Amino acid sequence: MPANHRRDIMTLIKVAIAGFGGVGRAVASLLLARRDQYRRVYGVDCRLVAVCGSQSGLFDSDGLDTGRFNRLEPGLTGPDFIVKSGADILIEAGPSDFRTGGPGLAYLWAALSAGRDCIVISKGALVHSGLDLRALTQSSGAMLKLSGAAAAALPTLDLIEHSLKGCKVLAVEGILNATTNYLLDAMINRGLGFDEALREAQTGGFAEADPRNDTEGWDTASKLLLIANFGLDAGLVMDDLLVEGIQSISQSRVEGWREARMVPKLVGSLVRMDGGWQAGVGIRTYPLTDPLAHVSGKNKAIRITTDAMGDTIAIGSGTEPLATAAAALKDLEHILIARAIHSV
Amino acid sequence: MPANHRRDIMTLIKVAIAGFGGVGRAVASLLLARRDQYRRVYGVDCRLVAVCGSQSGLFDSDGLDTGRFNRLEPGLTGPDFIVKSGADILIEAGPSDFRTGGPGLAYLWAALSAGRDCIVISKGALVHSGLDLRALTQSSGAMLKLSGAAAAALPTLDLIEHSLKGCKVLAVEGILNATTNYLLDAMINRGLGFDEALREAQTGGFAEADPRNDTEGWDTASKLLLIANFGLDAGLVMDDLLVEGIQSISQSRVEGWREARMVPKLVGSLVRMDGGWQAGVGIRTYPLTDPLAHVSGKNKAIRITTDAMGDTIAIGSGTEPLATAAAALKDLEHILIARAIHSV
Repeated sequence: MPANHRRDIMTLIKVAIAGFGGVGRAVASLLLARRDQYRRVYGVDCRLVAVCGSQSGLFDSDGLDTGRFNRLEPGLTGPDFIVKSGADILIEAGPSDFRTGGPGLAYLWAALSAGRDCIVISKGALVHSGLDLRALTQSSGAMLKLSGAAAAALPTLDLIEHSLKGCKVLAVEGILNATTNYLLDAMINRGLGFDEALREAQTGGFAEADPRNDTEGWDTASKLLLIANFGLDAGLVMDDLLVEGIQSISQSRVEGWREARMVPKLVGSLVRMDGGWQAGVGIRTYPLTDPLAHVSGKNKAIRITTDAMGDTIAIGSGTEPLATAAAALKDLEHILIARAIHSV
Repeated sequence: MPANHRRDIMTLIKVAIAGFGGVGRAVASLLLARRDQYRRVYGVDCRLVAVCGSQSGLFDSDGLDTGRFNRLEPGLTGPDFIVKSGADILIEAGPSDFRTGGPGLAYLWAALSAGRDCIVISKGALVHSGLDLRALTQSSGAMLKLSGAAAAALPTLDLIEHSLKGCKVLAVEGILNATTNYLLDAMINRGLGFDEALREAQTGGFAEADPRNDTEGWDTASKLLLIANFGLDAGLVMDDLLVEGIQSISQSRVEGWREARMVPKLVGSLVRMDGGWQAGVGIRTYPLTDPLAHVSGKNKAIRITTDAMGDTIAIGSGTEPLATAAAALKDLEHILIARAIHSV
């Protein structure tokens, strides 16, 4: 019976998820929905053995299913819990804080130190301690993937590392933040002031109660920093970036753009200079003939300029949290492929 | 002396190029320019041992350099010549003919049969016999890469195979042909008729003397077929596609689009249906708010719709022949990576 034979030699890969809010749960559900696909394509049994939020979690070495996700048990949480779960791969989807590294930092540090591969969705730890975490992978042999953090469904690191392989990246510009897209659109096309647009966005759920991480450019800067450091080895820290947001845009600037038929976007930008990178976040304006002028709402985009392939633009528009979960599980498959090839 | 030590253990990879026109020569020059990069990054000595056109070529087991490219020797050509050169990797850049397979077909058949990895730039053989060639790789263990053929610098297969890994592709639409972009733009924005626009394009070098491969949609159809078969396992042949070109567009249709402020593009399209794919080439119109409306001139674009990541758009704009050469050498690096991992 070939089917049984296949099952006998199937490799078991145990997965844990730290951070079990909307995104963590979406990752868990999608992982379980794709288990058959992983069996069929890679001959791997991907088993979800542990999940946890900040206070509680679940563990089952035989594998969890979605029916148990609403019955988390208090105390089953923390870096030790995850390491002791025996998971081969940690998916980190907790709250993000780039000033402290957030809870993700301790999870990632523990897992990478134990040689476990990590897939990161929250940006905080990678912005705060990305260079150290990367060094840790080099000593422990673990893999660290971060598509979900860099810009979720929009391919950014993928383009640099895979699609533009061999080319020298000269410049990167990215429209990486949905909230500022929404606000700028409301200000330009509907004539709202910043405060009015913000209140509307907050009411509609398009902006957070404390919107400064988005409006002052820090979210864009965080994503840019990940692209710079993990895609281009730029070795930058947040202090190297000149970061401007959209909170102080005057009515007269808005009118000037409208009259000139130029579309403003909050853009993170990297330019290769002699011996390093010039990096920053600020407003850039585009003529209507530029595809980037038409990246609005929840869409994100990146333009990468290389020596040999000219400009390559990518525009992504997945629906959250599914698209982010899919980005993390893309990383999972890339790990499965790399590990499978190693074991041939 | 670490440098000498490195050189001692360096793997030698011998490369041959069949088809030595503008693109083949650009590949050769870029390969030689990147040899140090390949040594440093992969520990591989990539040596160009053979090149040939239809009548003449060059062979040197110690490696060719650019100084000899204008002194090809008669008779050094053909599939046997390439196989006997001992090349580990063949880059096929000859003339393309999808009705016969072109000269590339014999080169690829011989090289793949001998277990040599192949990087394909000309579409003809892949359109004509892609399914057979693919089957041949499965029996011989050779790798077959085709970024240069699928749409050169524009990532198409990369997106499907790497950036959207794990997602189910539901639909693909691609603006894949520069000549029709040029002609449609002249007809819409400058009011020229098709014949007039074509004469202008031919004079300017933007259209061939026999333009039908472009204007009747066959070039677009060829690229679409490669994306379908190699990216999506669609198993299609050219006869499965409904192919319409731009040669019969009436003045009144042009006026209608202009009045409606819609932008026409020649588009290759794939839609997943129950049990297969609906595939075709024809005019599609876009509103000015769609980034694809702004893909003009020599730019190309693709929009891929998946179940979990929504729409992903890529737009490419490299300058030929350098961008196509870079696409082929991206394939080379992907082969080096896969082979290096295998030999760990």
